[in-house]
Order: sequence, then structure tokens, then C-alpha cells
Amino acid sequence: MISVDQALEQLFSLVSPIGAETVPLTQAVGRVLAADAIASRDQPPFAASAMDGYAVPGNEVAVGAEFDVIGEAAAGHGFSRACGPGQAIRIFTGAPVPQGATRVVIQEDVDRSGDRITLTDRLSGGDNIRPSGADFCAGDKLSAPRLLRPSDIALLASMNIAEVSVARRPDVALISTGDELVMPGENPGPDQIIASNTFGLKALLDGIGARARILPIAGDSRPLLEAAFDLAKDANLIVTIGGASVGDHDLVGDVAEDLGMQRAFYKIAMRPGKPLMAGRMGDAVMVGLPGNPVSAMVCGHVFLAPVIRAMLGLGLHPSSRLSARLAADLPENGPREHYMRAFVQDGEIRAETRQDSSLLTVLADANALLVRPVGDGPRSAGESVEYLPI
Amino acid sequence: MISVDQALEQLFSLVSPIGAETVPLTQAVGRVLAADAIASRDQPPFAASAMDGYAVPGNEVAVGAEFDVIGEAAAGHGFSRACGPGQAIRIFTGAPVPQGATRVVIQEDVDRSGDRITLTDRLSGGDNIRPSGADFCAGDKLSAPRLLRPSDIALLASMNIAEVSVARRPDVALISTGDELVMPGENPGPDQIIASNTFGLKALLDGIGARARILPIAGDSRPLLEAAFDLAKDANLIVTIGGASVGDHDLVGDVAEDLGMQRAFYKIAMRPGKPLMAGRMGDAVMVGLPGNPVSAMVCGHVFLAPVIRAMLGLGLHPSSRLSARLAADLPENGPREHYMRAFVQDGEIRAETRQDSSLLTVLADANALLVRPVGDGPRSAGESVEYLPI
Repeated sequence: MISVDQALEQLFSLVSPIGAETVPLTQAVGRVLAADAIASRDQPPFAASAMDGYAVPGNEVAVGAEFDVIGEAAAGHGFSRACGPGQAIRIFTGAPVPQGATRVVIQEDVDRSGDRITLTDRLSGGDNIRPSGADFCAGDKLSAPRLLRPSDIALLASMNIAEVSVARRPDVALISTGDELVMPGENPGPDQIIASNTFGLKALLDGIGARARILPIAGDSRPLLEAAFDLAKDANLIVTIGGASVGDHDLVGDVAEDLGMQRAFYKIAMRPGKPLMAGRMGDAVMVGLPGNPVSAMVCGHVFLAPVIRAMLGLGLHPSSRLSARLAADLPENGPREHYMRAFVQDGEIRAETRQDSSLLTVLADANALLVRPVGDGPRSAGESVEYLPI
Repeated sequence: MISVDQALEQLFSLVSPIGAETVPLTQAVGRVLAADAIASRDQPPFAASAMDGYAVPGNEVAVGAEFDVIGEAAAGHGFSRACGPGQAIRIFTGAPVPQGATRVVIQEDVDRSGDRITLTDRLSGGDNIRPSGADFCAGDKLSAPRLLRPSDIALLASMNIAEVSVARRPDVALISTGDELVMPGENPGPDQIIASNTFGLKALLDGIGARARILPIAGDSRPLLEAAFDLAKDANLIVTIGGASVGDHDLVGDVAEDLGMQRAFYKIAMRPGKPLMAGRMGDAVMVGLPGNPVSAMVCGHVFLAPVIRAMLGLGLHPSSRLSARLAADLPENGPREHYMRAFVQDGEIRAETRQDSSLLTVLADANALLVRPVGDGPRSAGESVEYLPI
């Protein structure tokens, strides 16, 4: 058996980058920036007033000082002339500060009578001016690769970038295998169950930037499997679920090999989801997951998500872990890394009582996979442990 | 001035539910379940083998015991007859366990010769049978409301639910106002800047389940604002950005009132983003945000996100906070709740040095809003503080 980290290294060695595409800024959130985005102008592009008030020569500001109001500067409509000694410009937030003015006195600190203002004795400090380029300057960049969040989108807009180069969404083909499966909404026979893994994995992988498609279920026959692989052949990642163990009825690996897959089969020291098949099939990475629903989803978090992020250009890293305090004691762990279904709240994590890998209700109630390292000793309530948020 | 919590209460009082729609399961992740989803059958629907091996009468299992293999049960293809005394059925993972068999001996624990098996002395424990209904029973339900995650989608599939009733996505109309603004990709005049708030807010609100649309910029004139509100009139939430303070050039509130808005104007004891306008306009909730980019985004997290979640049926709650240890001392806070741009890593949070509300670069570098309560005293490195993840 190999470790989870070793298996992930093997998977990463199969990944190649998948290229970029240009999308409008409104579609860029959640995508990965593929080329540096560069500002073409300063922001603000001019010294701008941070308040509503009066722009004046700063050296003349004193309690009781008087100024003639000679014009107005509004956002979008600057005052075209300069502000001379003894003069003030009525100014609003966001407006360009006129030449000659070096301070904005807020309107609350001014008494106005006609076109004359007098500074009151409440005079507050600060020049209330945002210098040109305070946020960014022409040539400043947002560097790729970067997973774009809402605040990045606001920043890119402010840099006057209307469309951005982002990594293409990896095309993932999901194939569930087995005569026992029917699609949701169908009428299962007495020996049959409903295919659920492909639906859960699509939701998971789409959410981290892939474009996953659910292919028709491949029954346990060579022609059905071949037909499924044929439908998958343009994908960047082909995922089969089920048929990846050593039973007599496991055809998936054989058929994939006949179709040219360089096959590797790993028994991974992990629970749940021990067996994993992997290889390259043409231009695609092919991964075979175990068929138990919880195993398939856990492998999705532990193996497929890092593969997708690698394809997106985000580097070769395992899924990020957080830490929390154990709510209750845990016995020692065995020789396999254990991803226990668990619930985290207020920094405290509690493993679910039932850990059988067939229980989707338990997985749905969980919000974390508590990671027990290989050979980890018994742990006491209050100790810090690592988990994957799910 | 009112508190952030009081302002949120006022906003919640304006919200009404917005109804449900039915979507295919593949489109349900990230949506909010609007009606309980009910299983129509047990899962597993039969006692199922958890391993590859031999199904036998459990009371006959002993080291050296022998059985006649009289048939086979595979996933999707049960064995139609019963297993009698001294008999075994070759069985694979997921197959129905035949009548009369009460234990599956794993294949590694068996020597097979022709149609006869002998149990070896390695005999491991457990019956390796998943009882019918172990995961869920007919009538069990996934209760609404519930934000659907990938594992919920897998569970719903497994319950044979092909389409689900989910809350409609609230339609949000985003209107930025001001003569100083142009859209990204346009050619700004010397006094102009690029509209960024609507882009950042759309990314934020779409990500939590809304469907936000960016309306044309409304310049500072009555007809332009009226035209913008006209385009927004079918929305569930109308958000204006800018023009919500007390300057001479703030027309938004006046125009909205003329169009029938019951106007409330709050000065909220918060930084950044003090002013907020709110009311109902026809069937829509109308919120006016301040125009500074960081203020608008912070108000998006603090006010708009909870409003969207309320519309989705997720209850009337402020955005969830987490806690982390301070990386460095902080001075005492003033009379306003302060949402400081900050960066959290490994449980430690550090406030950014520059907190001016015009700096989108600082916001984009941050991943948290560190919350300083009103009148909070000085805090030391290592103390626990609350933050909103962003």
C-alpha cells in the first residue's frame, strides 16, 4: 500500500496544464486568472476629495479664517481653474481637488454666508484628500495565477479591465459503472439502487471550477464500458466510479487498458476508499474511484479536487486543512489514514458515531473530514486535530 | 446613529419570501431546498454485501467449515433462491444477500476448490452485511430549508429524487450612480473613474445564490435615475451605490421617494460605510449603499448577504463570524463598529496597515473583515477576536 501523499504525487505527475480563455469580467469570479492583469492608469487618477466640504489652500486653515467660494467641483465635474490665496472651492466626495488647494475642510466645520465661508472652532484634522495613485498606479498588476474572489473582481473593474484571461474549466467526464445502478427518477428493479456518486462529484467539482458531465451509466459489459469511454474521450479528466477493486466483475481497468491507458493501480493506505486506479488515456487523466458513495466523495475531496486545482494552474497541493479542538476522545488509529466524517462548530470538532462508507446520510450531516494520520495514537478531548472542510 | 444589528433588523422587516421553483438535481447545488425531500424506498433496499466473498448461514461459520457453492449474487443480479445449510453463494460488494445467508465471509478467508470452499484459520470478524435501510428508510426526509452541498446532492440522488424544489434566486438590480463613473472597457474622461462596485457586488451576491444584474450607470440627473429604477422594477432587491449621503448632489433618495419608496435613512455606527438608505419600492426591497468601493463591498457582506439569505428562506441572521488569535496589538476602537480589512492564516489574524475605504488593493489582499465592537478596548496579540471571512 502507498500513502495518500504518494498517490497524490502520482496523480500530479499525470496532469498537464489545459490552457486559457478570455471571459467578460462578470463571469470571472471563481475562475483562475491565467495572465497578469495590468492597470493602465492610476487610481484615483487625480487627487480626489474624500469628503464633502471646501477645498482651500492648506496653509491658510485656522479657526476663524475666511474664504471666497469661487466655484464648485463635483465627482465627474472638476473645477477647471486654480484655487488662489483666500479662495475656496465647494467640493464633493470623489471630485478632483483643484490646483492650488491642498486641504478639504469638511462642510460641518464651516459657516457659509452667501459666497463666503468662515472656519468654525470645531475644525477637525486631516487633509481629506486621496492622493493620485493611492490605490494603485499604472503598471501595477494583479498577478496570475489567482483564484478570483468578489473583491478581485471589483479591483479588476477599477483597473478598467473589462475581460480577463482565465484558465479553461477542466472538462470532467463522470462514468458510474455497474448493472445495479439506475439514474435518479428511473424505476429501479428489486436488486438495483440509484446512481448517486456522479451527482455528488459533479456538484463538488463544478464548485471548484471544473465543468463536469455525467455520462450514461456503464453496465458491467465490455461494449457498454467502451461506449462510455468513447463519450469521454475529449475530457481532461475521466473519472470512473465502481469496478475498481479486484472482484471477478471488475472490467473497468481491463477495458481502459485495451483503450490505451497506461494503468497504475494503487492500494492506498486510507479509509474509506482504499483502491484507486489511475493513468493517462490519450490526452486525459483517468482516475478510477471506489464505488461506495462515501468513499467516492471522500476521494473526490482528497484526490480529484487537487487534480482540478493543478489543471487550473493553482499548483500541486493537497486540499487545505484547518484545525479544531476535539470535542471527545478518539481511540488510536490503525495503519491507514482515516478521513472520519465529522462536524465542526465554534472551533470544536466531533466525529460522527457511524463511519460506514455506505452512509450518505452521515456524510450529509457532516461538514468536515477529520484526518487521522497513519498510526496516530489515542487523542483526548481538547487536543487540536486537522480536518478538511466539506 | 443606530447599531449594525438594529439596521439589519430594519432590513429584515422589509424582506418577504420569494417563492420556489423546481430544478434538475444537477443544478441544485448551492441552492436552498424549499420543500422537504422524501425518500420513497429504503437504502440499501435489501440487505447488501459490504465485501466480495461468500454468503453463508452465519451459525455454521468456523475455522475449517466447508460449504457447497450453489450460485452467485452480483450487484444488480441477486441469487433468486435461498441459501440452505451447508451451502454458500459467491457474492460481490453491493449484491443482495440471499435468503438464508446471514454472514459474508470475505474471499481472502476462503480456500476454494471447484464448487467447494473451506474457511481458513485467518477468519476475520463481522457479518459484512449492510442491513436494508441502514442509510435511510422510505419516508425519511432531508428537511427544508437547507443550503444544498455536494454531499446533499449525492444523498438526494440516492433517494431517487431527480428534481428538487428550491428557493428562486433573488433577482438583484445593481445601480451605480454618479457622473464620474464609466463602465470597464470605456474611455474615462480626466475627471472620471471606472465603476467597480456593481461588479464586485454581483460577484459576491451571485456566489451566495442571487441572480444579480448590473444596470447602466445612472448619471446625476433625475431622468437618468428614473430610467434606471424603471429597468429595476421587477427585481426583488434594488441596490443603488453612491448618492446616499447628504451632499447637494445626492438625488437618489429623492427620486426613489417620488417613485413610491417608503424611505428610511440610517446613519449606522460602523466603519467603513456609515450611511445606508433602505425602504420598500413596490414589491422590492431597496437599499442604498455608500459609494466608496470598500464601503460598498463591506456593506455587501454585512447587510446585503443576510438579506439575500433571508429571501432564500435561510432565516434572519447576520453573516456568520469565525474567531482567530490576533497577530499584533490593536488600539482601542471608537464609537463605531469597525470592519477592518485583515488577513487570516493558520488561526492568526492580522489587520492591514492601510484602512482607507477607497483602497480596493487592500481589500483584495484581505481575506477577512476583523470586527471591532463599538467601544472595544485595546487588544493584545494572542487575544481571540471575531471576523467575517470574505
